[in-house]
Amino acid sequence: MSDASVTNRQWRLAARPRGLPVLSDWEFRDEAVPSPGEGELLVRVLYISLDPAMRGWMNAGRSYIPPVGIGEVMRALGAGEVIESRHPGFAAGDQVTGSFGVQAYALSDGSGVSRVSTAAAPLTTYLSVLGMTGMTAYFGLLDIGTPVAGETVVVSGAAGAVGMVVGQIAKIKGCRVIGIAGGPEKCRFIVEELGFDAAIDYKHEDVRVALRDQCPDRINVYFDNVGGDILDAALTRLARHARIVICGSISQYNNDGPARGPANYMALLVDRARMEGFLVFDFASRYPEAGAEMAGWLADGRLRSLEDVVTGLESFPDTLLKLFRGEHFGKLILGVEDTTG
Amino acid sequence: MSDASVTNRQWRLAARPRGLPVLSDWEFRDEAVPSPGEGELLVRVLYISLDPAMRGWMNAGRSYIPPVGIGEVMRALGAGEVIESRHPGFAAGDQVTGSFGVQAYALSDGSGVSRVSTAAAPLTTYLSVLGMTGMTAYFGLLDIGTPVAGETVVVSGAAGAVGMVVGQIAKIKGCRVIGIAGGPEKCRFIVEELGFDAAIDYKHEDVRVALRDQCPDRINVYFDNVGGDILDAALTRLARHARIVICGSISQYNNDGPARGPANYMALLVDRARMEGFLVFDFASRYPEAGAEMAGWLADGRLRSLEDVVTGLESFPDTLLKLFRGEHFGKLILGVEDTTG
Repeated sequence: MSDASVTNRQWRLAARPRGLPVLSDWEFRDEAVPSPGEGELLVRVLYISLDPAMRGWMNAGRSYIPPVGIGEVMRALGAGEVIESRHPGFAAGDQVTGSFGVQAYALSDGSGVSRVSTAAAPLTTYLSVLGMTGMTAYFGLLDIGTPVAGETVVVSGAAGAVGMVVGQIAKIKGCRVIGIAGGPEKCRFIVEELGFDAAIDYKHEDVRVALRDQCPDRINVYFDNVGGDILDAALTRLARHARIVICGSISQYNNDGPARGPANYMALLVDRARMEGFLVFDFASRYPEAGAEMAGWLADGRLRSLEDVVTGLESFPDTLLKLFRGEHFGKLILGVEDTTG
Repeated sequence: MSDASVTNRQWRLAARPRGLPVLSDWEFRDEAVPSPGEGELLVRVLYISLDPAMRGWMNAGRSYIPPVGIGEVMRALGAGEVIESRHPGFAAGDQVTGSFGVQAYALSDGSGVSRVSTAAAPLTTYLSVLGMTGMTAYFGLLDIGTPVAGETVVVSGAAGAVGMVVGQIAKIKGCRVIGIAGGPEKCRFIVEELGFDAAIDYKHEDVRVALRDQCPDRINVYFDNVGGDILDAALTRLARHARIVICGSISQYNNDGPARGPANYMALLVDRARMEGFLVFDFASRYPEAGAEMAGWLADGRLRSLEDVVTGLESFPDTLLKLFRGEHFGKLILGVEDTTG
């Protein structure tokens, strides 16, 4: 065992939220750290990935994955270290990522667990560019959006985990890239630090007017993370045969009623365009290929990973809300404890 | 000149309608029949195609085609006979189709005018299965929907001009076909006369529940002519990698405000599906191929064309409303005058 507390701290789902999750939707529990049985491994979780999709997992009803049950540990991707293994594929000391949940220790049968090398990149990067976040950006943009050099790519949530990677990959592929983000600081960052061609601050600009100004040749690929008004604005500015990639709709996840559909969807007909959804899991067989290419871009400085790490497992309910308030910058990660102490 | 009146009767757009067009949105005018100049031909219009798209052409604002100007003859496809020609490609007596407008005589420079053979099919069929209606069904279903034998195809507006052809072609291609239509008479017709596998009467059934019953393997291709609640219901029943063909949204055309977007559009992500719009004009180079194939199906009885002809140019404003009230059956056509008299 490590020198950490032998108590496993966990956040469990206590109730299905209506709107934004509140503290009473969660239960914080201390439990004894379990011991791995035959074929199992015990992981000390160091970092937990906070993702907009988590809000959907908290709802009852059909989706691409079953909902988290009431009383269950909240589902989350994470990264950590194997501290005990009775699984032939893993040994104590291995650095791993997997679906470990919002807790300090996770027992696993190894399914969906990957060994990663912190010699190549920091552990947090495996929850960001080199994890599901990066895979989502890579396959969503390249396989669903199919951008061609010289085309105009617009991405919403552009200073968020996925949007930031989408814009950078689109630049690598020779596109003109416009990011939509909230506030001058994020807008400055994606242009000056990440090399986007322009940014639109949806909190202070009329997005429809700004898209008209910034996209003289209209929009060939719109990568949507947000839904709502911004999706509707983008629909007014499509180029013929445009592709809209539906990756998320964070503006709608906490609605206490039905989502708002895109009122301008008939632009799909006028502009002979398509709107397509995807799930990154369908591309699992190609993760190694994408990971290798993105690791190369990271190494030669063409791609940057930005992680916003908030430390303290106890802060989970509040830290998760940062996502929906747009208060984070890049990939939001929860550090389980202060690992420097 | 023919023995018809030498007065050209016309319906011109007098005002941009709000909601359903009313009589004061139109101006009925008598004018002298014009004479063709060099390179022109004069057509006596016999049949006028009434299409949901006409409602869109009456609105100001950007679309795939400029709006009809106030004071202009209302745009419409039609079929008729050349009565005088100073155009090398046409001779008096030719049967033709083209964009002749809502009027009894049309002057044309020949662009977009096609000669047709009434030996092969009645003139009205060239406004239906062998015209833009049939082309829309053919390319929308086969090229955008890409159905595969054994898949489930659902079409809304199934007893309408396009829907009726879509369902029949899907049957020819070996699919299970469910039509959504309004009222028991239409539902009976598409099943008993056109061979659809099942029909859902949206006026008397809960479409969402009925789709669950009728589509045990979910929906692979949804061909949408109507938008609104029915589109939202179809989105709840998609199969993985489903294709939604956006052909029209007749339920929304007369809204006196913004259209209602599909609230369930995030099903595109859950089901890895796409929603795509198209315009038949983009397939113009392949009209001959599609026309030949559909003429063959008509000839061997695998495809039926049903035309609902209302006679009397004067009735145009009222007859057009039949479309939006769903009072027609198959292709709605305005007969310019009683040609049997």
